[in-house]
Amino acid sequence: MSQRELVILGTAAQAPTRERNHNGYLLRWDDEVVLFDPGEGTQRQLAFAGRSAAKITRICVTHFHGDHCLGLPGVIQRLSLDRVAHPVDVYFPASGEVYFQRLRGAAAFHETTELRPHPVDAGTVATARTFSLSARRLDHRVGTLGWRLEEPPGRRMLPDRLAALGVAGADAGRVQRDGDVVVDGRRVTLAEVSVPRPGQAFAFVMDTALCDTAFELAAGADLVVCEATYLSRDAALAREYKHLTAAQAARIAAEAGARRLVLSHFSQRYGDDAAFLAEARTVFPDVVVARDLTTVAVPPRRW
Amino acid sequence: MSQRELVILGTAAQAPTRERNHNGYLLRWDDEVVLFDPGEGTQRQLAFAGRSAAKITRICVTHFHGDHCLGLPGVIQRLSLDRVAHPVDVYFPASGEVYFQRLRGAAAFHETTELRPHPVDAGTVATARTFSLSARRLDHRVGTLGWRLEEPPGRRMLPDRLAALGVAGADAGRVQRDGDVVVDGRRVTLAEVSVPRPGQAFAFVMDTALCDTAFELAAGADLVVCEATYLSRDAALAREYKHLTAAQAARIAAEAGARRLVLSHFSQRYGDDAAFLAEARTVFPDVVVARDLTTVAVPPRRW
Repeated sequence: MSQRELVILGTAAQAPTRERNHNGYLLRWDDEVVLFDPGEGTQRQLAFAGRSAAKITRICVTHFHGDHCLGLPGVIQRLSLDRVAHPVDVYFPASGEVYFQRLRGAAAFHETTELRPHPVDAGTVATARTFSLSARRLDHRVGTLGWRLEEPPGRRMLPDRLAALGVAGADAGRVQRDGDVVVDGRRVTLAEVSVPRPGQAFAFVMDTALCDTAFELAAGADLVVCEATYLSRDAALAREYKHLTAAQAARIAAEAGARRLVLSHFSQRYGDDAAFLAEARTVFPDVVVARDLTTVAVPPRRW
Repeated sequence: MSQRELVILGTAAQAPTRERNHNGYLLRWDDEVVLFDPGEGTQRQLAFAGRSAAKITRICVTHFHGDHCLGLPGVIQRLSLDRVAHPVDVYFPASGEVYFQRLRGAAAFHETTELRPHPVDAGTVATARTFSLSARRLDHRVGTLGWRLEEPPGRRMLPDRLAALGVAGADAGRVQRDGDVVVDGRRVTLAEVSVPRPGQAFAFVMDTALCDTAFELAAGADLVVCEATYLSRDAALAREYKHLTAAQAARIAAEAGARRLVLSHFSQRYGDDAAFLAEARTVFPDVVVARDLTTVAVPPRRW
């Protein structure tokens, strides 16, 4: 079975607290590990989470406010320190390229791991073995991209149809791979023994005011990580600083038809996170209030 | 009484561990707070230590390897976030100025706190109310400065001499301030009622191979923080990477006539720190093996 899970490394907006480090989210998706928004201290949070920086294959940065990127130099330097042999792709808004360059060269070290920077704008930015990665522009105070990772659509095989048509053993693999197979002189097509299966999707929406692209990123996603800097009682602040409230994040998940919502990026002004859960649950059922060093599964599809 | 103490924020070399964050040392010295070598995560370590970044008056960086400076952007940005009204002076090796500039501009923020960068070489770099700050070149793989903070020499008043010469009350303050005072028609000079009192000193020696300047920095210092990346059994590695062993750090403290030695900057290859203490104590008596989030007093003078 494929391993798809989100390791939450940090959940604080702007200023870290004793309980919450700055942002950091590690998505394990089959044979890839994608790090989103490494805030300061991500390198050490990885150690606390028992995860190795050496497994990271891609890094996505939404924008270049400090709480979303100051952990990048530490991670980049750690890759070379650990002699990581595979290349690591880094995707970030092209408008913030000067910050990426400064972060990459923030201290003296020998960069031995191949880093492949991708200053990008909206669109599909990468196609991997089991997903495509795309970006959409969000509405924040600096150039910001939300991210969507999406499995290509496939086919779900129907065991009863396979049996009825006498397709068994290696033939079942063949019809899936080749689109048809000949059984006892009769041609059986993939369409006869399977139905379309939309791919799983993960969305990362942070930081932004409420905007259409947030809904588009989250459309039908199995797991959505969404910033919820504020509670609704501070909606005016959210508007002023171009952030979301917990209720708005939940509305995005609900209207986009998402399956599970992870709220994060909490302002330190709030003492505990129960209010975020309560506010979001009035709008959307499957809500996780992110806590540092916890893991959230990408919910498996049930047919 | 003056408050002089060292708050240890992080103690790891190169890679942080669960127990040790990257470097970070906060020296409280009367009305000033000087931060040395802010490694990644210093901002959050301050929160764990219950200390405010807003109190920092000066920052000294020995060199621009990541474990000694990647926390600088977070601290700088935090000063502005907390609307710190006083200027903050930052001292660093002039040879590393490009790294300072990248760290200062590593992310998008509004720098409202006045930052005064001082790219410096060896010599006295600042004179404050109760100390002067000087730098000396150390012997590492990149341009590195050790730091020494030294109280100006003063006079220690002798109560029995004051009493014998009839100097009492406000007159005691007068002779100390003005150099003499007239009591019952007789002029009493400061030299008659006091002896010279050398100022207290703090030294910060990190990272370096064994070199003369390390001894000069530590000369007669009350508190010396010294890197001890390795144990003597790995002295060849220490030489190769231009670092110190615990025994060498202790030798510096002993031969320099220092009073208390704090060892730090431990390689993650060692499981526990008892061996560092044992090794150093064979050479020098007052050794503290630094642990994160502990405080070490600058030992008061006993006369």
